Amino acid sequence: MPTSPQRAGRFLSDHGLDGFLLLGDSLCNLDIYYLSRFLAPDRFALLATTSSSLSILVSAMEGGRAKKESCADEVVSTSDYGIREKLARFDRPEEAYVAVLKEFLRDRSVKRLGVPADFPVRTYLDLSADFEISVLDSPVREMREVKTPAEIEAIKYSQRVCEEAMLVAIEMIRRSQISGEVLVLEGKPLTSERVKSAIEVSLLKRGCEAEDTIVAGGRDAADPHCNGSGPLPADAPIVIDIFPRSKRTRYFADMTRTVLRGEADEEVVEIYQAVLAAQEAGIAAVRAGATGNEVHSKVCEVFEERGYPEREGRGFIHSTGHGVGLAVHESPSLSEVGKPLAENNVVTVEPGLYYPELGGVRLEDLVVVKEGGCENLTSLEKRLIF
Amino acid sequence: MPTSPQRAGRFLSDHGLDGFLLLGDSLCNLDIYYLSRFLAPDRFALLATTSSSLSILVSAMEGGRAKKESCADEVVSTSDYGIREKLARFDRPEEAYVAVLKEFLRDRSVKRLGVPADFPVRTYLDLSADFEISVLDSPVREMREVKTPAEIEAIKYSQRVCEEAMLVAIEMIRRSQISGEVLVLEGKPLTSERVKSAIEVSLLKRGCEAEDTIVAGGRDAADPHCNGSGPLPADAPIVIDIFPRSKRTRYFADMTRTVLRGEADEEVVEIYQAVLAAQEAGIAAVRAGATGNEVHSKVCEVFEERGYPEREGRGFIHSTGHGVGLAVHESPSLSEVGKPLAENNVVTVEPGLYYPELGGVRLEDLVVVKEGGCENLTSLEKRLIF
Repeated sequence: MPTSPQRAGRFLSDHGLDGFLLLGDSLCNLDIYYLSRFLAPDRFALLATTSSSLSILVSAMEGGRAKKESCADEVVSTSDYGIREKLARFDRPEEAYVAVLKEFLRDRSVKRLGVPADFPVRTYLDLSADFEISVLDSPVREMREVKTPAEIEAIKYSQRVCEEAMLVAIEMIRRSQISGEVLVLEGKPLTSERVKSAIEVSLLKRGCEAEDTIVAGGRDAADPHCNGSGPLPADAPIVIDIFPRSKRTRYFADMTRTVLRGEADEEVVEIYQAVLAAQEAGIAAVRAGATGNEVHSKVCEVFEERGYPEREGRGFIHSTGHGVGLAVHESPSLSEVGKPLAENNVVTVEPGLYYPELGGVRLEDLVVVKEGGCENLTSLEKRLIF
Repeated sequence: MPTSPQRAGRFLSDHGLDGFLLLGDSLCNLDIYYLSRFLAPDRFALLATTSSSLSILVSAMEGGRAKKESCADEVVSTSDYGIREKLARFDRPEEAYVAVLKEFLRDRSVKRLGVPADFPVRTYLDLSADFEISVLDSPVREMREVKTPAEIEAIKYSQRVCEEAMLVAIEMIRRSQISGEVLVLEGKPLTSERVKSAIEVSLLKRGCEAEDTIVAGGRDAADPHCNGSGPLPADAPIVIDIFPRSKRTRYFADMTRTVLRGEADEEVVEIYQAVLAAQEAGIAAVRAGATGNEVHSKVCEVFEERGYPEREGRGFIHSTGHGVGLAVHESPSLSEVGKPLAENNVVTVEPGLYYPELGGVRLEDLVVVKEGGCENLTSLEKRLIF
């Protein structure tokens, strides 16, 4: 996994800094995880210095594990800086921590310090007395956009597990019976909840987890932010959107299929064909150098041509796609504000059409941007009717 | 679920503030989730004002869901403040967002503003030109220590699900065969990974998830931070520590049992009895008004009396317990620095003894602090040998 120390070094010299400091827990602060590869639920400090080296300052308890797991050049612990004595000396634990942090910075010859926009204000104010601090947009977000081979492998694994879970879901729907307006499996209503639970168990058995999963039919499917609930409808499209993360690598995958059990209205079939054509046009437009806006426009053109323009919040009401990595939604974006794509961006292409009276249809693949095209990481067939 | 508006109002008037502003996503920023009960992966703003009302400012896309799900008195969206026009007008999206935030604050007559220590520094600096800002310790952490009846119900649910998963794990170990030095189940080595997977599937089926689970035997069990891996040993203690969160309520549970399949050394049995006695002494000491330090001292006394003092990182090498709620580790603490406990704190009591040559033993129950005692939310038996 990459630490991009050269890039960090260039950023520092460009801004006339001795160091750039990040502070947070690496479960929530993905930039810290990206640079350190040390997963910890408790706050720690990460310092990149002009010597192109990365140092992390962790609690005494985490020192051993950090040395084993982190890719930082140097691991030091708060006990190396006498946190116990300082806790006894200061009134508030935070004062002791800041005293440690100051010594840690001084030992690494830091005077002019950069911190990111989301750096905690209290620590910024506490350090301001002793250091010259610039608040800067973190360079890490941009680094994270372009994936290394190891990152792409990690995403491919999550995507394979995601496809297996999708097959489990589709198989439940395929095996279900039609009972009036709803689906029934093994004598019980086939609910969104049952399918989601089967998806999550399938993911978990392969080391992935999903904070949320969408299995939405009927009117639920017409709202792309609705997760779905209750019995799934017969004869109507069901949107299944799965976006799991590997618990080990922390990389996400993301895919969507829309399926229908029973008989489809002609209009639903036409909508499905339009979404499929729009997706194919979008995927065909993805290549290094194309802008996210260009890809999005290609998708919109197909919808316009086929008579599905966006109007009053109906039709294609979201953007075409987004980057996927340590976050399920990250840059670059395939939308009106989408900038040029670079080789080894990993993005979703996920057009959809939504009409409250008919439901919704969305198809989502995950692709790696290449020179002259893209590699589709999604192999599962696209088929509406089961 | 509580919003404690009166308490927030008192905090504001005590500090001469018109409002207190939190900013973050409520998956990571638990204070924002606590006050708003609106779970969102994207950043939003929460403002508590002297009129004792809570307002949240969310993205246009989240407005509908926030109105349905949040307990805020008022939900407004960035589109109510013309975010689209502002995005077109400003160079950087962040400038447009800050312009919206300023209008949102002015509309609510805020001039003197409080923000918490972890408030993002860039936004603090951007707002400083127009508002008089004080950085204060958030009052929410203290509010979160004392649980309401609804919160205790949520924790009880997670704990029941946790006990069911513990039974699944213990049952696998009980049913296993002894093959030389390791355990075998259904013809295959019984590994830590297999037991953890069964635990996680059991949790998931009841709507709970665990970021991590400990199933550690042998030398692994001697390190309380080791999750365990590989085949589980026969004739040696296996520590099982499960700390799941309900996906729906977001409240955690936490419990630990230590079991042994086969024959136990006399010394291991004595250690188990010492941990059990220390835990009973600890639980007996928990009551409103007792300090966390007093409870911890009772536990330490039992270990001293039985000849298991802490020495050079051996023996009882961690604190007695911690609060549990929206975080798996939160205040109050049962340790040397533990302050007086209050009614309806929810804390773990989890003494343990660790010796590299023997392994580790830990027992952990979850209790609600009451006047004159505590209510134990953990009912599963404590038994070493299976």
